[in-house]
Amino acid sequence: MRNELNVLTTDSLIEDVHFRRNWTSARAIGHKALAVNLSDLAAMGAAPRAVLLSLALPADLELAEFDELVDGFVTLADAAPVPLVGGNLTRSPGPLVVDVTAMGTARPRRLLSRGGGRPGDELYLTGSIGAAAAGLGILTAGADRTRLDDAAAACVSRYEQPDARLDCGIQVARNRAASACVDLSDGLADAARQLARASRTGVVIDATAVPIHPGALAWATGLGQDAMQFALSGGEDYELLFSVRRRQRRAFLATTARCRDVTLTRVGRLTAEPGTWLDRAGRLEPLGDGFTHF
Amino acid sequence: MRNELNVLTTDSLIEDVHFRRNWTSARAIGHKALAVNLSDLAAMGAAPRAVLLSLALPADLELAEFDELVDGFVTLADAAPVPLVGGNLTRSPGPLVVDVTAMGTARPRRLLSRGGGRPGDELYLTGSIGAAAAGLGILTAGADRTRLDDAAAACVSRYEQPDARLDCGIQVARNRAASACVDLSDGLADAARQLARASRTGVVIDATAVPIHPGALAWATGLGQDAMQFALSGGEDYELLFSVRRRQRRAFLATTARCRDVTLTRVGRLTAEPGTWLDRAGRLEPLGDGFTHF
Repeated sequence: MRNELNVLTTDSLIEDVHFRRNWTSARAIGHKALAVNLSDLAAMGAAPRAVLLSLALPADLELAEFDELVDGFVTLADAAPVPLVGGNLTRSPGPLVVDVTAMGTARPRRLLSRGGGRPGDELYLTGSIGAAAAGLGILTAGADRTRLDDAAAACVSRYEQPDARLDCGIQVARNRAASACVDLSDGLADAARQLARASRTGVVIDATAVPIHPGALAWATGLGQDAMQFALSGGEDYELLFSVRRRQRRAFLATTARCRDVTLTRVGRLTAEPGTWLDRAGRLEPLGDGFTHF
Repeated sequence: MRNELNVLTTDSLIEDVHFRRNWTSARAIGHKALAVNLSDLAAMGAAPRAVLLSLALPADLELAEFDELVDGFVTLADAAPVPLVGGNLTRSPGPLVVDVTAMGTARPRRLLSRGGGRPGDELYLTGSIGAAAAGLGILTAGADRTRLDDAAAACVSRYEQPDARLDCGIQVARNRAASACVDLSDGLADAARQLARASRTGVVIDATAVPIHPGALAWATGLGQDAMQFALSGGEDYELLFSVRRRQRRAFLATTARCRDVTLTRVGRLTAEPGTWLDRAGRLEPLGDGFTHF
């Protein structure tokens, strides 16, 4: 890899912190553990080159569950594609721990960071959000998995087996079409705050523009929640939030139009005035807090 | 890094599997978690370039312990030297989990593997062994740390804060002075078996040549153990075992003579006949099993 920078990222999923084994299949746990790391690479615009899987296995984990977990991981790795180059197995006296490290590469000055935004930049979001939080709500409410309607099934699938926006992050980075990027591991409000803080700007999110997933809209009321709250504070959507200079807008939209299966929505802007705000038809409210795990 | 290969390795330390918090200081846990990964790089002859630290923290871990753990890690990283480039913090509902990933580089065809040995190759071991197992035995027996004699203190220190033989592994690899290498995470018997299996050879260890650490010799009887058993089956010494072609012997010894603070001992040979054997003054016995954690 001549003239390329290596980036490394690590993220772990821990039983009873990030998932529960009686709600979530081992296959989904394996998938998600890799997806959250690929999402970190996507937010940097780095192409994945190698991944490592480190597992701490409780004594009551059955061999079939172990096989499924590894299969969920490897299936996503094959699809990315990125080789699983090593790892570590040990036993755990407590929870199942799935620790993943991913290495990626990007050319110098093509890496995306959170800190490149400036006042006046527009904010664009991939896909739609809120579904993962709705899916978690549906599982927490004890829904019967075999009897979910399509909207509920889509939310649960989004929660358990998120996609990383690798192609989109890499293309935008290669074309230097955005000024900064962050992924939505802990909700839009948290992502916007992180991008603004790193860029030393304020931020305003336009409430009417936020693309809420139809499954989240369908299920929010039944779960006793506001769909906008799922979208702003619900975690684990793993979409990407980009900031884009106004003069980059055309190049950015042309680049993202070539990304597979991803729509982009303008959801707000960076401001010179500090603070993180939600614009509800001209009235500014403070943006709420991000997502907390169990 | 033009013309260099990246290698990645990951290894974790888990409370009540690899250490106990009431025996081992947080500083030592941080040190050891990095040292075992640096030892993996040393066995490949790769120079460390970056490390990641991923921690799952139980609620009862005090802030001072967390600080000490990170300090133990960073102090060794500074000494290596290798930069800590990132990591992850999460809470654990169970044990303290310290997961480390290390990236190293080596030039192509300079990497050491376990599989390059051939029948007739001589086996060389760095340093002396058995001290870590004796140190664990001393801690398990409930010895008063403030009243250890010098031999016991040396054993406990070796168990808690092992050194990785980085300089030696890297120099041997750069000079292509060995045919294969493995580190002693689980004892000499296990290391010899792994090197022989990967090289598709048999192996004979010469019992009279094994360099047993003086602390292990001094403490074995008091702990009701045979010192040779500590040396063969006691884990966590993190020395390196090299196989060396006879015609490489002079180059190997010249290279290792320049390694800092490391003595090399010829401890055996690879054979065409399969099997893993201990040669006790001409009588061959099967080599015992490796080390198992708690």
